[in-house]
Amino acid sequence: MLREKRILLDHGSGGLATKKLIEGLFLRRIGNPVLSRMEDSAVVDLPPGRLAFTTDSFVIDPIFFPGGDIGSLSVHGTVNDLAMQGASPLFLSLGLILEEGLDMDLLEKVADSISRAAKEAGIVIAAADTKVVGKGQADKIFINTSGIGTLSSVTSLGVEKARPGDKVIVSGFIGDHGACVLLARSGLPFEARIKSDSAPLNHLCKRILAATRPSDVRLMRDPTRGGLATVLNEIADASKTDIEILEESIPVRPEVQGVCELLGLDPLYLANEGKCVVVADQEAAPAVLEAMKQDGLGKDAAIIGEVKAPVDQQGPKVVLRTKIGGERIVPMLTGEPLPRIC
Amino acid sequence: MLREKRILLDHGSGGLATKKLIEGLFLRRIGNPVLSRMEDSAVVDLPPGRLAFTTDSFVIDPIFFPGGDIGSLSVHGTVNDLAMQGASPLFLSLGLILEEGLDMDLLEKVADSISRAAKEAGIVIAAADTKVVGKGQADKIFINTSGIGTLSSVTSLGVEKARPGDKVIVSGFIGDHGACVLLARSGLPFEARIKSDSAPLNHLCKRILAATRPSDVRLMRDPTRGGLATVLNEIADASKTDIEILEESIPVRPEVQGVCELLGLDPLYLANEGKCVVVADQEAAPAVLEAMKQDGLGKDAAIIGEVKAPVDQQGPKVVLRTKIGGERIVPMLTGEPLPRIC
Repeated sequence: MLREKRILLDHGSGGLATKKLIEGLFLRRIGNPVLSRMEDSAVVDLPPGRLAFTTDSFVIDPIFFPGGDIGSLSVHGTVNDLAMQGASPLFLSLGLILEEGLDMDLLEKVADSISRAAKEAGIVIAAADTKVVGKGQADKIFINTSGIGTLSSVTSLGVEKARPGDKVIVSGFIGDHGACVLLARSGLPFEARIKSDSAPLNHLCKRILAATRPSDVRLMRDPTRGGLATVLNEIADASKTDIEILEESIPVRPEVQGVCELLGLDPLYLANEGKCVVVADQEAAPAVLEAMKQDGLGKDAAIIGEVKAPVDQQGPKVVLRTKIGGERIVPMLTGEPLPRIC
Repeated sequence: MLREKRILLDHGSGGLATKKLIEGLFLRRIGNPVLSRMEDSAVVDLPPGRLAFTTDSFVIDPIFFPGGDIGSLSVHGTVNDLAMQGASPLFLSLGLILEEGLDMDLLEKVADSISRAAKEAGIVIAAADTKVVGKGQADKIFINTSGIGTLSSVTSLGVEKARPGDKVIVSGFIGDHGACVLLARSGLPFEARIKSDSAPLNHLCKRILAATRPSDVRLMRDPTRGGLATVLNEIADASKTDIEILEESIPVRPEVQGVCELLGLDPLYLANEGKCVVVADQEAAPAVLEAMKQDGLGKDAAIIGEVKAPVDQQGPKVVLRTKIGGERIVPMLTGEPLPRIC
C-alpha cells in the first residue's frame, strides 16, 4: 500500500519512490510474469509469422466518461490498430505521464481499468514506464500504448486495395464515442444517455477473416479521430477510387443524431473507438456482415455503400446519397477541431 | 511545406491538418518505406529469434541541451534499453504529445534530430502518432518511444544473475547528463562546458557480447534516472548480493565533480544517457573492459568494484570504499527529486 494520497515529483525520480509506486500500485494491478521481471526491456517469445507494430497516445478529456476511461481507451485503441491490420494482439507497452498532485485514487482506478481491458482483449502488458512532470506541466494523465501482434502469412490488408464494385461495411452505430465525450464536456443534462463505444475489436476482426477467403477482405479500418468521413477519404485517396455511401444505411443512434443537431455537428466526423469499417469484395460482403452480426460488438453492422471508379479528374472523392435523394461530397475533416477526443 | 508557424489544435484532429503536418513535416524527415504506408499498424518482418520490447517517455526540460535534445534522447533511451538486454534494435515507434502554440521550427529541429539518431543507431521508425493538447495542458513536447529488437538464442542476461566475485564495470564518466541538464536549468555561466553523454549503446554492447562467452556477462544496465547508485542497488537487491565499489576507480569528470560540489549533489545519483554498467565473471572482466575501450563510447571504461556475498541480515547493500579509506552505504535515490531529467 502507498502512503501518499497524491503523485509527487519524487515518484518520477527513478529511485525508491518510483519503485514503491510501481510495486505498490501498478504491479499489483497489471503485473504478470513478463512485466514483473522489471528489466530494461521485456523478453518475449513470439509464434512464427510477420509482426504488426503500432503506437498511440491518449490525452482524452475528461479522463472518465460514460462507457470507459483513459485506461480502457488506451488499451482498446492500440488493440484495434493491430486488429485492423489482421493481427492477433500479443504484447502491449504502457507509458504514463503523470502530473504532480494527481489523485492516487484516480490512478488506481485507471490502472484497474487498464488491467481489465487488457485481460478482455487477451493482450499481455510487457513493458511500462512512468514519468512525473510538475503541476501545470501536463493535464492529469497522458498514456501512450504501443502494441505488437502477429499476422498470418495469408493476411495482406491495405488501405490502397479497395476496387470498384467492393462493398463498404460498418460494424455498428457511428459517432457514439465523439458524442459521448462532447456531451460529457458540455455539462448538458442528458449526458449519461450516450455511452462511448470503446471496445476491443480483435475478436470481431478474427471472425471476419475466418469467414472469408484471404483476398476478399481488402482492408479494415477503425474510424477514430476524424470519424467515418475521414477514414473513407483516406481509403478513396490511397485506392484512387470514389466511394458512395447511402445516408439511410448508415447506423446512427437517434440520441447521437439529436446531439449532433444540438451542437451543429455531423456524425460522419465524430470519433468511434469500437467500430470498424471493412471494404470487401461484393460477393464476400454478406459473409462479412454475417460474421460481424455473430459478434456482440457487430450486431448493428450494415453495408453502407460501394466503391466506385473515380468519375472526375480532380481526384478521388467520397459522396453521400442523402435520404431525400440528393448527393453531397464528404471531404476529410477540415472544420472545427474536437481536441482531446482520444 | 507547412504554412503555419505554430502547432494548432487542428493539427491533432486526425483530419486534413493532421495529414498535412505528417506529410509536410514528419515524413520528409523520418519517413521510410514502413512508416510511409500510413496504416493503423506497421507490418514488419523479423529475423528468427526471441524479441525484446521496451517503452520510455521523455519529458526532459529544457528540450535542447548541450550534447543533445529531446529528439535524440528519445531514440537513445529506447535503443539503450534494448541493447542492455543484449538485443539488436530493429524498430522504433514514436508517440508525440504537442502543446498548442509550439513553434513549428522547434518541431522541425526535433524531427531532424530523431531522424539522425535513428540512422546512427540503425533503428527503423516503423510507427508514429501525434496528439495536440491545448495551451497550458502540456509543456511544449513530450515524446514516447517504444522499441523492438531481436535477441540471439544464447543471450540470457538478467538483473538477478550477479554472483559474488563478479566484477562491476562502467563504460565511462558518470553523471554527465544529469549535471549538464541541471546546469542548463540553473543559468550558471559555465553551462556549455558539460555536455550530456546521450548516445546509442547498441554497437558497444554488441562488442561486449562478441568478446565474451554467453554466460560470462551476467547483466548490462544503463544508469539513467537515479544514476549509478540506484542501478547498483537494483542489482544487489535482485541478485541478493552486496556490491562494493571503489570511489577512486569511478570515472567522474572534474567539472561534473565541481558542479556536484556547487549544487550539493552526488555524481553517483546523476542520470547518464550513454553509459552502461556491466556485471561479468571476474575472469571475463578484462575482455569486457577491452571491448568497451575499442569503442569510441567506452574509451574511459573502468572496473569500479566487485560483487560480494551479503554480510548482514538486513538485506543486500551497496558499499562505497572512499578515497581516504572509509566506507559508506550507498542507498537507492531517496533525496531531492531531479524532475524531468529525461
